[in-house]
Amino acid sequence: MGKIYAVGIGPGNAGKMTEEARQVIAGCDVIIGYTVYVELVRKELKDWELKDKEFITTPMTQEVKRCETAFERARGGKDAAMVCSGDAGVYGMAGLLLEMAEDYPDIEVEVVPGITAALSGAAVLGAPLIHDFAVISLSDLLTPWEKIEKRLAMAAEADFCICLYNPSSKKRKDHLRKACEIMGRSKAGETVCGIVRNIGRDGEESALYTLDQLKDVEVDMFTTVFVGNSQTKKVKGRMVTPRGYSNE
Amino acid sequence: MGKIYAVGIGPGNAGKMTEEARQVIAGCDVIIGYTVYVELVRKELKDWELKDKEFITTPMTQEVKRCETAFERARGGKDAAMVCSGDAGVYGMAGLLLEMAEDYPDIEVEVVPGITAALSGAAVLGAPLIHDFAVISLSDLLTPWEKIEKRLAMAAEADFCICLYNPSSKKRKDHLRKACEIMGRSKAGETVCGIVRNIGRDGEESALYTLDQLKDVEVDMFTTVFVGNSQTKKVKGRMVTPRGYSNE
Repeated sequence: MGKIYAVGIGPGNAGKMTEEARQVIAGCDVIIGYTVYVELVRKELKDWELKDKEFITTPMTQEVKRCETAFERARGGKDAAMVCSGDAGVYGMAGLLLEMAEDYPDIEVEVVPGITAALSGAAVLGAPLIHDFAVISLSDLLTPWEKIEKRLAMAAEADFCICLYNPSSKKRKDHLRKACEIMGRSKAGETVCGIVRNIGRDGEESALYTLDQLKDVEVDMFTTVFVGNSQTKKVKGRMVTPRGYSNE
Repeated sequence: MGKIYAVGIGPGNAGKMTEEARQVIAGCDVIIGYTVYVELVRKELKDWELKDKEFITTPMTQEVKRCETAFERARGGKDAAMVCSGDAGVYGMAGLLLEMAEDYPDIEVEVVPGITAALSGAAVLGAPLIHDFAVISLSDLLTPWEKIEKRLAMAAEADFCICLYNPSSKKRKDHLRKACEIMGRSKAGETVCGIVRNIGRDGEESALYTLDQLKDVEVDMFTTVFVGNSQTKKVKGRMVTPRGYSNE
């Protein structure tokens, strides 16, 4: 039996991949993933590491099929790396692989963590997530929108720093505006916010806004959004959350 | 003027450090940090990289002084790396450095992200943080305990997966018990929970519990705690949160 690795490759530049992720990918017989990420890791491998390696790319939506392919290859004795952007364990493929592993008692699944967008995006903006924070996806594909609204409301009321994934989709362009309105019931309109687009890739860009301004900012699926807590401030153009509420 | 880098080195084994973090550390003139982490990166450097490098270790509590040292060295033309375990931007030194940077207009501070314990610990347990999650520190050193209680209550009520940092301190041994009681008002007693100790280091150990059992588990400052959402389950001994609430 082969083994399956769920590997987070970080935000998309090789420098932010861990050495462990690189080694695991180099050592596997099969590399599976969404086309963009498979191409990215292929570029990072040395010629001799590419030898006899199979690369399988699947469209973004066929996650179950992608996992089945990994299990089939492992059953055939091959080690397979399922590559995910960011961290495989944060909105990534590690969960589905581990769920499906129930049907493959002999096949081991190991998770190799990576730098998720909350961390890589935060580093671009400054230090917005220094204190307690919540990560919320605005995609209502698999989660009822009411549940997302409740999380936004509660996280804002408890003064969490908040990081939003999938702030926009083709079908619903107004998710971020709605989210800002909900958070605005507890967070001040002047709360420091920031967005980062194309983290770690060509065309990386970032900007700071107030929560009031953020409502009208156009974002896409490559954007990660950060909303500060009541203490977050702008220092020399960076978004900085202090590490506590008292003074030293 | 030199430059200051706030560098997250991950959970403590070199494999989970990013290539960027390694290169930045190797390229700096001065390495500053808590003794354990400075020793860890020193071991990773090659002989020629160690040449002419200054290593400054300070006790855990003197954070302001540690930052001042970095700015002094940068003012003297040296590049300084402030190394932190996990991610420099999650309960790390990036915040304080960026706050203090206001007094040093010419000195640039760059944040190099790393794998924080929420991600590395999650990978050990399985995939507990696949869906929306909140990260909360139970340390009331700089945050009023009432604020921590409110966050626990709201995060539980909104059915977040929850990751707890600093679940215990010498002064207050009962933080985790109290936190479990508060989360237990909204989360079922059978909610799948897990703990990981010494992530990525010698003596790494992990275990799964129910929320009811977690109350009585003894933890220390090297432990990270994970509490599932209403969908989190145990699959082949791993802690797995599904990526949504609907079926495909």
